[in-house]
Amino acid sequence: MEKLTDNEIEKALQGLQGWSLNNGSISKSFKFKDFKEAFSTMTRIAFECEAQNHHPNWENVYNTLNIALNTHDVGGVTQKDIRLAQSIERIVGA
Amino acid sequence: MEKLTDNEIEKALQGLQGWSLNNGSISKSFKFKDFKEAFSTMTRIAFECEAQNHHPNWENVYNTLNIALNTHDVGGVTQKDIRLAQSIERIVGA
Repeated sequence: MEKLTDNEIEKALQGLQGWSLNNGSISKSFKFKDFKEAFSTMTRIAFECEAQNHHPNWENVYNTLNIALNTHDVGGVTQKDIRLAQSIERIVGA
Repeated sequence: MEKLTDNEIEKALQGLQGWSLNNGSISKSFKFKDFKEAFSTMTRIAFECEAQNHHPNWENVYNTLNIALNTHDVGGVTQKDIRLAQSIERIVGA
């Protein structure tokens, strides 16, 4: 899995809503109605992560969820991160 | 719910394993076998948080979980945090 260039990442992010490139990760903050909504969504995302064998750096405080994705092995962003971000968008939007 | 003094917090932490006081929160880092174990434990903790109506600031990366507890309304640590930390210890140890 090859590390994407910043240009390639920015191009891929145009197909996503609200994700940005920061410090070698792509990230987005989400806000939900309450903790239950936030954690329920995290659970659905967790199953998808496990299926893709790719895992986020994520932080939750009550109804907020911050997700950052990168590919540890290459020290940057790869198609695995773009793919997981797309899945997360589908899950959150569903 | 009253804010505990640093002395009261330190005394309460003596009854817990590996929790420490940092920046007005009590915190602990956990390590699990893999993501599934980490997230399964988070799920069990999430139900307890909801039951206690008290929620953590927590961060997960693969098999690691960092939890910080404080009581936002009083800007410090209260018995609610101590109680939740005790519950978390029971869940993780179970």
